[in-house]
Amino acid sequence: MKVFGDIYSGNCYKIRLLLSLLEIKYDWIHVDILKKETQTAEYLQKNPNGQIPLLELEDGCYLAESNAILNYLAEGTKYLPSDRFSRAKVLEWQFFEQYSHEPYIAVARYIARYLGLPEDRVREYESKQERGHKALQVMERQLSQSEFFVGNELSIADISLYAYTHVAHEGGFDLQSYPAIREWIERIIALPNYVAME
Amino acid sequence: MKVFGDIYSGNCYKIRLLLSLLEIKYDWIHVDILKKETQTAEYLQKNPNGQIPLLELEDGCYLAESNAILNYLAEGTKYLPSDRFSRAKVLEWQFFEQYSHEPYIAVARYIARYLGLPEDRVREYESKQERGHKALQVMERQLSQSEFFVGNELSIADISLYAYTHVAHEGGFDLQSYPAIREWIERIIALPNYVAME
Repeated sequence: MKVFGDIYSGNCYKIRLLLSLLEIKYDWIHVDILKKETQTAEYLQKNPNGQIPLLELEDGCYLAESNAILNYLAEGTKYLPSDRFSRAKVLEWQFFEQYSHEPYIAVARYIARYLGLPEDRVREYESKQERGHKALQVMERQLSQSEFFVGNELSIADISLYAYTHVAHEGGFDLQSYPAIREWIERIIALPNYVAME
Repeated sequence: MKVFGDIYSGNCYKIRLLLSLLEIKYDWIHVDILKKETQTAEYLQKNPNGQIPLLELEDGCYLAESNAILNYLAEGTKYLPSDRFSRAKVLEWQFFEQYSHEPYIAVARYIARYLGLPEDRVREYESKQERGHKALQVMERQLSQSEFFVGNELSIADISLYAYTHVAHEGGFDLQSYPAIREWIERIIALPNYVAME
């Protein structure tokens, strides 16, 4: 299979991390967001929403959205529970990640790290801090009760939330006051076949 | 089972619509967002992220996030395909809905319909239009190729996207130039056991 992605994108890193944990081989096709390579006519044929990551299967079918790709790849493995309620809880955390976490923590990091915090985006950057901390507080509460997001085993819910949380400081979020999150990050880094983000 | 929700919320309507199609009985507990009833200590015990809808199961467990709830309720029914790739495609469209559609179309509608388009939010309202239309274009393209989002049968991907699309005009989005979307809306309204949004 092929993965279209940018090595610096946390959403793409989710896929790299899971594929590494699963020891699955794949081809990586570099797509540069800053050069708008997701907006070319050729790329939009593959993913009309113009985003990365994108998975191309051996039969030529495409699958977009990082969390949908994680669910596809984890099916039948220990990273996606088999019982109905736990599966739904995994999705609950993944939708939380895309709606209540990524738009604040990942976007603040993007503005600071990749755009160099230009003056015309300082206000937007600052506006991300409160909601970003709210998401971290919700995470801290759960991780004070269980080792991982859904029970005491790693699932793709953890992979989704790990991607931008472990680099949250690059978006201005100090994790010092979130001890349970910091311990959870250490547990993930210690996993066999763990790969770091660039 | 119990559903905590606000009758005017599209995210809550998704659950009402699926439960009606499935002919499942449930108790509806009204939670008023404008009165901040999702932010009380009692509610935050149930859902630490302070959002609706929220599903309470008979064993007292809670499940949040509208699209996670839809997946839970649709498991084993015709509204969630059983093959691995189609299930992932359903999720692809649901993550698209939460990341690329709802933050523009639902939020523009909220500002206009519920807040009365106050002067200090006009700029934000206007900023939602371009990305909202981009989402509608992606939808129009898919619905020109298939009757529903994943193949030619209704799935929970359609229910997720229908909720705010069929009232998009209340957020300033004219559907006149999206004929495939308008036909799809008519197909959904014609379903047995369809219930309208308030």
